[in-house]
Amino acid sequence: MKIVVDGFGGDNAPLCVLQGSEMAVKEYGVEIIITGDEEIIKKTAKENNISLDGIEIVHTTDVIEVCEDPTTILKEHNNSSMAAALKLLAEKKADAFVGAGSTGALVVGASLIVRRMKGIKRVALGTVIPAKGGCYMLMDSGANVECRPEMFKQFALMGSIYMENIIGVKNPRVALVNIGAEETKGSQLQIDSYKLLKESDEVNFIGNIEARDVPLGEADVVVADGFTGNVMLKLTEGLAKYLMGELKGVFTSGLKSKLAAAMVMKNIKGMKDSLDYKEYGGAPLLGSSMPVIKAHGSSDGYAFKNAIRQAKEFVETDVNAKILNALLKQKENKSE
Amino acid sequence: MKIVVDGFGGDNAPLCVLQGSEMAVKEYGVEIIITGDEEIIKKTAKENNISLDGIEIVHTTDVIEVCEDPTTILKEHNNSSMAAALKLLAEKKADAFVGAGSTGALVVGASLIVRRMKGIKRVALGTVIPAKGGCYMLMDSGANVECRPEMFKQFALMGSIYMENIIGVKNPRVALVNIGAEETKGSQLQIDSYKLLKESDEVNFIGNIEARDVPLGEADVVVADGFTGNVMLKLTEGLAKYLMGELKGVFTSGLKSKLAAAMVMKNIKGMKDSLDYKEYGGAPLLGSSMPVIKAHGSSDGYAFKNAIRQAKEFVETDVNAKILNALLKQKENKSE
Repeated sequence: MKIVVDGFGGDNAPLCVLQGSEMAVKEYGVEIIITGDEEIIKKTAKENNISLDGIEIVHTTDVIEVCEDPTTILKEHNNSSMAAALKLLAEKKADAFVGAGSTGALVVGASLIVRRMKGIKRVALGTVIPAKGGCYMLMDSGANVECRPEMFKQFALMGSIYMENIIGVKNPRVALVNIGAEETKGSQLQIDSYKLLKESDEVNFIGNIEARDVPLGEADVVVADGFTGNVMLKLTEGLAKYLMGELKGVFTSGLKSKLAAAMVMKNIKGMKDSLDYKEYGGAPLLGSSMPVIKAHGSSDGYAFKNAIRQAKEFVETDVNAKILNALLKQKENKSE
Repeated sequence: MKIVVDGFGGDNAPLCVLQGSEMAVKEYGVEIIITGDEEIIKKTAKENNISLDGIEIVHTTDVIEVCEDPTTILKEHNNSSMAAALKLLAEKKADAFVGAGSTGALVVGASLIVRRMKGIKRVALGTVIPAKGGCYMLMDSGANVECRPEMFKQFALMGSIYMENIIGVKNPRVALVNIGAEETKGSQLQIDSYKLLKESDEVNFIGNIEARDVPLGEADVVVADGFTGNVMLKLTEGLAKYLMGELKGVFTSGLKSKLAAAMVMKNIKGMKDSLDYKEYGGAPLLGSSMPVIKAHGSSDGYAFKNAIRQAKEFVETDVNAKILNALLKQKENKSE
């Protein structure tokens, strides 16, 4: 299997991309294509003692930055490391893409360079987030600021297929983020989406979910517009950081506390790890016709490796074919 | 000073209302009017050994439930304990209102029974939430599902005056919740609101804030529509609960952990308290012509007492007069 990676996406590129790629080649036996400035890539690999075995470099000097207009990936930056990698995917020279660069540019690129699946209205970012007793997929967590009910229905379907096949959750519970349990709550978007999801027999819709119940593991696929979803994703990140910081304060105030810290260090570490998005690797851009995985912007080598593992599993379980099948079935049901 | 309280609002009413009222009479020297079924109130007080000194009962048997249509407070439930209390406030028979009942009904009641301040487009729920190094006000945290930029401008102004006068934050930093720092981010609502807030010289607008930075204390007044704000409020609550639960797990797995727990118990308790909304009492419905404080639905007696303290401070610092003044100044500046 061949995975193409954006060599210059993310805060720690190209180092973390190279580290993750090296580990992935060794651990998963995949082949890697990395895009970006060949000289810098080779220099970084050499300086950090990273083997380039199984890693092919496709040279390009341009990079699209996070602060830039995402649509420039189609124009000024159509030869950036991200665009070049997506083109290789579109041409089927690789089986999947992994990158930690600009989410906006990746959404545009996955939609218009790789292209959406037939019948899919919008690609959506499905981030898998730790919760009580497991994890849930937040769908959409940032690709589409404005949404329509039909898009929510597709998010629910794609998220369910992903959670079932990649994470192994049987008959995933789908819930709609809202400010109350009653079906009359929220704005028109929520009210109309509730109806549409309730009528849909392709997903296991359990109704509205209040944000309070999301981290408590009350649903497996949590459906929201990309604005709300992105706020939820980032608030989760910020709160975990804040609370772990407060906890650190508890354990460093005085000798007795430090002693106690030493005694539970292993457990605290385990707790921290269980909250860590890095274990899940990255977020798939579901709806793209080929597997596209968005790794976190601040990924280190380990997180990037996990994102590659995720891409591999995505290809192996053939999630996209399953989504296409489900869409086809929907169409048949409609025309009956 | 006289505070009217809804005797039958909240999960633990009327007990917690009575407990909070008794404490408030003793600690703050306020007088309390409590609305609701006189017989039940007297019986509950007697059974729980609560003194009714300084507490006047205004009898009414109806209650508006959380699940009911909020607008019924004006019709079917216009003699409910909440409506009766708000009417006493509107007639100036009390200086402020505190209640833990339905937020929706309270928003309708504060807007149409008590009435909005002149010039205020909508009342908004300003919840004060703990954050790194202090706290912030989330404005609006649930009163208005759909908002316009001019409303955001008023939320920013009212929130700033509250934070400065009640919480004691000098020149509060106001930020707009968005999915990126750049002023072109978000939907049209965010883009237009950014412009309006940037032009406003009455508030200290520091730009967009990503949800990640909110718990890290990067702003003092966090402006959002009531849908997004409510999701943020409830997610904060749920995540704190989830993480404290995980922490409990760390400290109860094995003898060594339990020993360590005993050693840091006091600090952990301090951390838990610092995260506790109960310390802040309740959320003011800013923009109402008389002080209206929404106590948390699951308030206990202590939280209810703190909400009464907050109402007292609201009256004493004359936040409403300061808001009116600021609105007047705005109007003058416009007409110049």
